[in-house]
Amino acid sequence: MPGDGDREKQAVVLVSGGLDSATVLALAVSAGARCHALTFDYGQRHRVELNAAKRVAHALHVVDRRVVRLDIGWMGGSALTDNAIPVPQTPTEGIPSTYVPARNTVFLSIALAWAEVLGAADIYIGANAVDYSGYPDCRPEFIRAFETLANLATKAGVEGRGFRIHAPLMNMSKSEIIRLGTRLGVDYSLTVSCYDPDATGLACGACEACRLRARGFADAQITDPTRYVDVAGAEIQ
Amino acid sequence: MPGDGDREKQAVVLVSGGLDSATVLALAVSAGARCHALTFDYGQRHRVELNAAKRVAHALHVVDRRVVRLDIGWMGGSALTDNAIPVPQTPTEGIPSTYVPARNTVFLSIALAWAEVLGAADIYIGANAVDYSGYPDCRPEFIRAFETLANLATKAGVEGRGFRIHAPLMNMSKSEIIRLGTRLGVDYSLTVSCYDPDATGLACGACEACRLRARGFADAQITDPTRYVDVAGAEIQ
Repeated sequence: MPGDGDREKQAVVLVSGGLDSATVLALAVSAGARCHALTFDYGQRHRVELNAAKRVAHALHVVDRRVVRLDIGWMGGSALTDNAIPVPQTPTEGIPSTYVPARNTVFLSIALAWAEVLGAADIYIGANAVDYSGYPDCRPEFIRAFETLANLATKAGVEGRGFRIHAPLMNMSKSEIIRLGTRLGVDYSLTVSCYDPDATGLACGACEACRLRARGFADAQITDPTRYVDVAGAEIQ
Repeated sequence: MPGDGDREKQAVVLVSGGLDSATVLALAVSAGARCHALTFDYGQRHRVELNAAKRVAHALHVVDRRVVRLDIGWMGGSALTDNAIPVPQTPTEGIPSTYVPARNTVFLSIALAWAEVLGAADIYIGANAVDYSGYPDCRPEFIRAFETLANLATKAGVEGRGFRIHAPLMNMSKSEIIRLGTRLGVDYSLTVSCYDPDATGLACGACEACRLRARGFADAQITDPTRYVDVAGAEIQ
């Protein structure tokens, strides 16, 4: 096992390819952590985000990067993984159909396993409760409950080398996140937020993720580098 | 969403192919649940247990059965997934090298996702704290913490359709489990407990899992149906 000194410097960061996780990765790097980026290929409709995750991780000089293929698409139950469920184009009441059952629980569990093997104490996730879409696993009480679980579930936790789950964007608005990332040098043109992009990664401009992102750049008064498809399928800037 | 009536009758059961999970599945079936068996192929050394899981699930007439391939073998860190770490043949101090980092957290997370999609309220796991090997994720406080998390993490939990995590073997000795399963009609010859079986499923007779199992049958005064390899590689009964 590494000494506490080594351990303190390592982190596992969930990197999806979106704007929030890119900002979190930049924050973890700026805090001096040796970052191990973890990305999931879970049959998501917006698979171009996998390429975005790769670009983001490389741009921010992670120590290591892994893509875990998670064979849960057969479950269905979400517009993001089930082609039979359309991505909503207008705001909906309650938790939207883009909710993926227990997604952050599954992602954090595997991040926890990797952190324990690495001897890393810190796990970072871009969960956000302000501009979030009502997802239950993007709330502070979820993060706290997972941290409690992590320290009961593991050999490291039982032996007093506990884990910290960091969700530093939890209480920030999208525009605050964009301002923070811009200060940290994040190149948001590398990221993809859209739930329903075309095959080349151009954003639809209509889904909830696109609307939140566009409003964030407008509110932050920062030029939006997102590349959108127009309704006829041609790229617009 | 199904009505509460339907929901109460469905369960997701973690079925590994071992003795404990076969008993738990028999218990869930005897409680009247429509059982959905979930098995993980996570690069375990004792892969013959995947065939055992199939036999057990079929014998107990599950409604549905899924094997999720979990690509975490690259992490290493356990004698069960890393060929460079030998399976211990003698009892060790503390948590043994067969501990797989965060395994039950990962397994329960994916079971939770499936349960939410199915509209099932009940998740069963064969975790056991008495004859267990010191694994931190086989303790009652872990199960309680996961149940708390499950109800914070999910749409179903937030909407008041909470989950119950059942670990009915938690406080039973191996011999009590074997007596219970025998009463419920479990055919233990279908199960594999050994951490290091040969390619045909014959048990090594020497690892901690084999020793616990053999002592369990002896204490229960029930004939042990396990098929062992002798030291020269020939089957002995």
